[in-house]
Amino acid sequence: MSRANLVADLEFRRPEDVDWEVNLKVAVIGGSGYAGAELVRLVLGHPRLELTYVTSTRHEGKRLSSLYPNLSKQTTLTYERFSAAESVEKAELFLVALPHGRSMDIIPQILEGASGVVDLGGDFRLSDAQMYKDWYGFSHINPDYLGKAVYGLPEINREAIAKASLVANPGCYPTSVILALAPLAKGGHIGLEAVLVDSKSGISGAGRQAKPHLHFPAVNENLSAYSVSGHQHIPEMEEQLSVLGDSLVKITFVPHLVPMTRGVFSTVYLERPGNMTVEELVQLYEDFYSGAPFVNVLEGGCLPGTKDVTGSNYCHLGLSVDARTGKVVILSVLDNLVKGAAGQAIQNLNLMAGFDEEEGLKGIAVHP
Amino acid sequence: MSRANLVADLEFRRPEDVDWEVNLKVAVIGGSGYAGAELVRLVLGHPRLELTYVTSTRHEGKRLSSLYPNLSKQTTLTYERFSAAESVEKAELFLVALPHGRSMDIIPQILEGASGVVDLGGDFRLSDAQMYKDWYGFSHINPDYLGKAVYGLPEINREAIAKASLVANPGCYPTSVILALAPLAKGGHIGLEAVLVDSKSGISGAGRQAKPHLHFPAVNENLSAYSVSGHQHIPEMEEQLSVLGDSLVKITFVPHLVPMTRGVFSTVYLERPGNMTVEELVQLYEDFYSGAPFVNVLEGGCLPGTKDVTGSNYCHLGLSVDARTGKVVILSVLDNLVKGAAGQAIQNLNLMAGFDEEEGLKGIAVHP
Amino acid sequence: MSRANLVADLEFRRPEDVDWEVNLKVAVIGGSGYAGAELVRLVLGHPRLELTYVTSTRHEGKRLSSLYPNLSKQTTLTYERFSAAESVEKAELFLVALPHGRSMDIIPQILEGASGVVDLGGDFRLSDAQMYKDWYGFSHINPDYLGKAVYGLPEINREAIAKASLVANPGCYPTSVILALAPLAKGGHIGLEAVLVDSKSGISGAGRQAKPHLHFPAVNENLSAYSVSGHQHIPEMEEQLSVLGDSLVKITFVPHLVPMTRGVFSTVYLERPGNMTVEELVQLYEDFYSGAPFVNVLEGGCLPGTKDVTGSNYCHLGLSVDARTGKVVILSVLDNLVKGAAGQAIQNLNLMAGFDEEEGLKGIAVHP
Amino acid sequence: MSRANLVADLEFRRPEDVDWEVNLKVAVIGGSGYAGAELVRLVLGHPRLELTYVTSTRHEGKRLSSLYPNLSKQTTLTYERFSAAESVEKAELFLVALPHGRSMDIIPQILEGASGVVDLGGDFRLSDAQMYKDWYGFSHINPDYLGKAVYGLPEINREAIAKASLVANPGCYPTSVILALAPLAKGGHIGLEAVLVDSKSGISGAGRQAKPHLHFPAVNENLSAYSVSGHQHIPEMEEQLSVLGDSLVKITFVPHLVPMTRGVFSTVYLERPGNMTVEELVQLYEDFYSGAPFVNVLEGGCLPGTKDVTGSNYCHLGLSVDARTGKVVILSVLDNLVKGAAGQAIQNLNLMAGFDEEEGLKGIAVHP
Repeated sequence: MSRANLVADLEFRRPEDVDWEVNLKVAVIGGSGYAGAELVRLVLGHPRLELTYVTSTRHEGKRLSSLYPNLSKQTTLTYERFSAAESVEKAELFLVALPHGRSMDIIPQILEGASGVVDLGGDFRLSDAQMYKDWYGFSHINPDYLGKAVYGLPEINREAIAKASLVANPGCYPTSVILALAPLAKGGHIGLEAVLVDSKSGISGAGRQAKPHLHFPAVNENLSAYSVSGHQHIPEMEEQLSVLGDSLVKITFVPHLVPMTRGVFSTVYLERPGNMTVEELVQLYEDFYSGAPFVNVLEGGCLPGTKDVTGSNYCHLGLSVDARTGKVVILSVLDNLVKGAAGQAIQNLNLMAGFDEEEGLKGIAVHP
Repeated sequence: MSRANLVADLEFRRPEDVDWEVNLKVAVIGGSGYAGAELVRLVLGHPRLELTYVTSTRHEGKRLSSLYPNLSKQTTLTYERFSAAESVEKAELFLVALPHGRSMDIIPQILEGASGVVDLGGDFRLSDAQMYKDWYGFSHINPDYLGKAVYGLPEINREAIAKASLVANPGCYPTSVILALAPLAKGGHIGLEAVLVDSKSGISGAGRQAKPHLHFPAVNENLSAYSVSGHQHIPEMEEQLSVLGDSLVKITFVPHLVPMTRGVFSTVYLERPGNMTVEELVQLYEDFYSGAPFVNVLEGGCLPGTKDVTGSNYCHLGLSVDARTGKVVILSVLDNLVKGAAGQAIQNLNLMAGFDEEEGLKGIAVHP
Repeated sequence: MSRANLVADLEFRRPEDVDWEVNLKVAVIGGSGYAGAELVRLVLGHPRLELTYVTSTRHEGKRLSSLYPNLSKQTTLTYERFSAAESVEKAELFLVALPHGRSMDIIPQILEGASGVVDLGGDFRLSDAQMYKDWYGFSHINPDYLGKAVYGLPEINREAIAKASLVANPGCYPTSVILALAPLAKGGHIGLEAVLVDSKSGISGAGRQAKPHLHFPAVNENLSAYSVSGHQHIPEMEEQLSVLGDSLVKITFVPHLVPMTRGVFSTVYLERPGNMTVEELVQLYEDFYSGAPFVNVLEGGCLPGTKDVTGSNYCHLGLSVDARTGKVVILSVLDNLVKGAAGQAIQNLNLMAGFDEEEGLKGIAVHP
Repeated sequence: MSRANLVADLEFRRPEDVDWEVNLKVAVIGGSGYAGAELVRLVLGHPRLELTYVTSTRHEGKRLSSLYPNLSKQTTLTYERFSAAESVEKAELFLVALPHGRSMDIIPQILEGASGVVDLGGDFRLSDAQMYKDWYGFSHINPDYLGKAVYGLPEINREAIAKASLVANPGCYPTSVILALAPLAKGGHIGLEAVLVDSKSGISGAGRQAKPHLHFPAVNENLSAYSVSGHQHIPEMEEQLSVLGDSLVKITFVPHLVPMTRGVFSTVYLERPGNMTVEELVQLYEDFYSGAPFVNVLEGGCLPGTKDVTGSNYCHLGLSVDARTGKVVILSVLDNLVKGAAGQAIQNLNLMAGFDEEEGLKGIAVHP
């Protein structure tokens, strides 16, 4: 199977004359949502980055801390209305956290003037414009860019990211699922159409906008499923895993809403490859992730919980084998706003800027 | 496939001389746990039952309301130490809510003196003593009784329950899973070894005893899996579904703990039978459950939430088909302490006593 | 102090020809909010009432169960657009659960055709139109009715309610606070301007409408205060307690939002009257509430929790004395949607209709 | 009023020969509880400290990460059994997080060999041994040390702390209350016996040990009060505020348990001094805390929430005046495990070691 279009052609290179040794100026485009606010938190705490420009159409003119009181005493910036010209004047690096369908318009406006762009939305994650029609329900207005963005999962794409100008930051579910399956996919161990993923997400994954089904009394003490007929993160998982294993992967995926704020927990079921034991599985995963500072492969028998990673950029993987039914069960947890969004974006930015991959991301999860 | 031992031989019949028309005296054996307290709540609100005897070894002498302040003004009963002789003097009907492995000793002591017994534990749910060694880790001390208890899921065993003296009340997970699959199993639609169940439970399912991993700060804002290597509810599901469909069913089952108090949500995945549509599925389920007052088959496309049934005896079933991957996905929700335990026990008692199946169980779920 | 205007003149009497012995037809005006849905739940479970008419402007034509899935299998009613003419044709008794400022217009339209009306909003709770300007910010359009409605707190107004046609159902906070203080007020024990109330409420108290500050991630794991500068429930508490004790009471009141769905917890602080002991306090309260089925005076030293009453119509009162600082501290808990709203409305309706005060309200709190 | 014994005599000075310029070795004595684990988290993230020794009697030999999976990949340390000799060999600075009544025995054993000790328990917070009998119920075995420890609230004791060898880290409630009142107390504005404090705490404040009343289903969706008859944090608040204002302060204090993990919210009520306006209050507080990096005085009308500071070392103060009843209401929030415990201990250590007060404490609260 050959999917050449998945390899970014890296046309948008970083300018040669950027001095990567001093602090770099960063803009957050779309800074009022949860991912945007988390980007702000992480950039403010990053020793090599300086936050210079944050936009929000709806909250123009307000202080960031009026929406996010945790930012009091951290910054006096106010939200600005986006302007492409102003943005490239004020910043070199861009973190874009807009609703799906919005960045495909905006990013081409800033890409030339920018040293690097990470898009946290879905607009550049898929290689094929048709998939946007099928899964997102819109026509992509800049399909030429689709093959040129690098899929920003450092654990499988570290080198390409380091050379990229435009990185498409993965979705939270796909991050948890691809990390759960990458070692098996790469090893050719995933069977055709055999993967089943039951994911559970905290409510912040649904965004900051108040909606009836996300109202506290509606969600609290309630567990529900949604998008059972097809979530738009499916094609992203399937495409990346298919490329990794050079074999078409099909995933049955059901996401659930859990009464907690942060956290993604994906329970991944697949056919046990051969008679692979838990020990062999753990070894395979430890080898695969030996150079990955943010993936924690648990010892056999250890089970992860979402709270183990809250507020941090880690993904914990628990591995088990159900010998009786012949299944492998992989448990993958991460913080949807950090490793599932803003933290991963900073990780990508670090790679793009030549910084240590962990720079600004060393915060330990808050527990309990 | 023939499993004659699963059909209860009904040796322990109800005495002929019981007057079922007046209020019946009920004992709750093991009344300090969550299931026991829920039994107390439901018996106190039942128009045909009178609560006369409640036991607890640990809390002997204390008022019920000292452990459960919601029972203030409802009863002045105190917990008594269990005595077989005293119990059959004080009560006709017995609801036994003891930890696994305890009722197999106690129930034979009271069965002859009782008009009917419902056991909420697991000790009489399986037909084969060997399964207790394999799954529960104990040797059954009264294996002769195993074939004589009726599995108390009214929706599949209504007639046998009505004639039974000893009813083994199903576990909370098995109730959710068997109700989710019974129409397909009965119709011969479940494929061999093809079923996968991802269940999520509120914390009350783990019982009233304080344990480090159930401490509020440990559980809150945390989602975790447990018993990945094999939960003792598996053989119960497999046995009942195998009998229903006359075909061996094997289930891969992973339970999760969700930061909420009540509720079981089972997401059940299986191969789509033929090209069955959602409409056909809904029709099949509506037909199967047409006489079942507590099963609510949602219209196609509707998805249930645990809060829809909190405090009530209902099970809501949501049905969907993933045509792309060829799977049927069934969502089954119930309140683990009501339809998953105490409510179902009362439903069984109603059938045994010849009452309306819904008597004392008409309470509508509290929402929000 | 004489406040004659507080005594309802009962002009709107119940028609003589109503047959109160058969089931009475009930309308819920404003049935889509949380209080309205709780009214529906309670009316459906009430043995003497029949639900015939439920209105909602926004959700006209939808099934009740589409908003509240707990009502599936309970009713097939749909929301109707309010029409005064139609409503009095379809129902005898009216439960009105509209936003503040709406029922002052609607109730006069139905009052003549109705056998009895209970208004759950604030529009008829205060005796003085000026107070609506001061505290609610609107001009009352039917001030003549203000003196004619009976304040519907059965524990202090049982007889007047039984004769009333229009009952103003108290707010949730005032119910908790007046019940906490009534025995002391009636006994003349409350000092001038000395009362301080720190209340905590679950989020359902803020209503069903999705708002940013009630969005799950905004509220969860968060405790905050609001309306510190003056909540509109203050005049209601002060007026009723002033009348009860025939002495002007002034209350400093600060409400808080707690990350839970249901429950009001009011901590009431006041000067210790004389050297009153806890035992004397408890005795005073037990005497005062001896005929009140829904008030539970806890023994000295016992402290209530909101969960003790969730889903039920009870108010639990815990009493204590801080001899060191000379304060009495009273803890008052109730379910804001039941005793704080819909349950109390049914309790009032029972009194108005001559039913047993507890009819339809015997549901025991769900615990845990 | 003169309370000379409150001024530490600083007998235990820091050794002159310690090189404060390199990383300092830190021991956490009692590292398995929540405060201990938070100390570990903060020390591991501190650029000038090195964690060398962590003790736990119960968990000796286990990896820290086996209790706190968030510490995976952060440290391979295991819990050791406490030995005074070993501890002073391995570390220079000591953070002691033992249950009340335990450190009064242990700290004298290590104080001479240590460069500095911060005790997070209550054993050295009070100046008078009699108060331990009255409030804690034990006889202090080392009363000579009581006058020699410095009360470790940097915002009022910065200079004394910088010179101290033994710092008694304040309780979580006292930190919130003293910070709320210090500017008024210092200005002589607090009236005699006039202060009333209604505090609300997340469950982690009750510690890591599993107990029935802290079991998830018991606490979730429940708000309750405790220690109404006298909490042991009262004398600490009263003593510090009395010294600050040179006038005896008496506090009525009622703490509550809130269904959330972290956070203290204290609502403080007192007589309005003169006709002080909100603006004047805010000005007074801003002036008082102008050099305090971790106290955030909100603008008038702004109300804090506990989530604004979760995981961070900040205290947010909201100020308001109820002119109608003549009260000042102050809202004080902090994270009980950070500014209320471990963060404040690090802040003290920074001062003792001559580091920047904010070193290692710059982490921004995680929001939402």
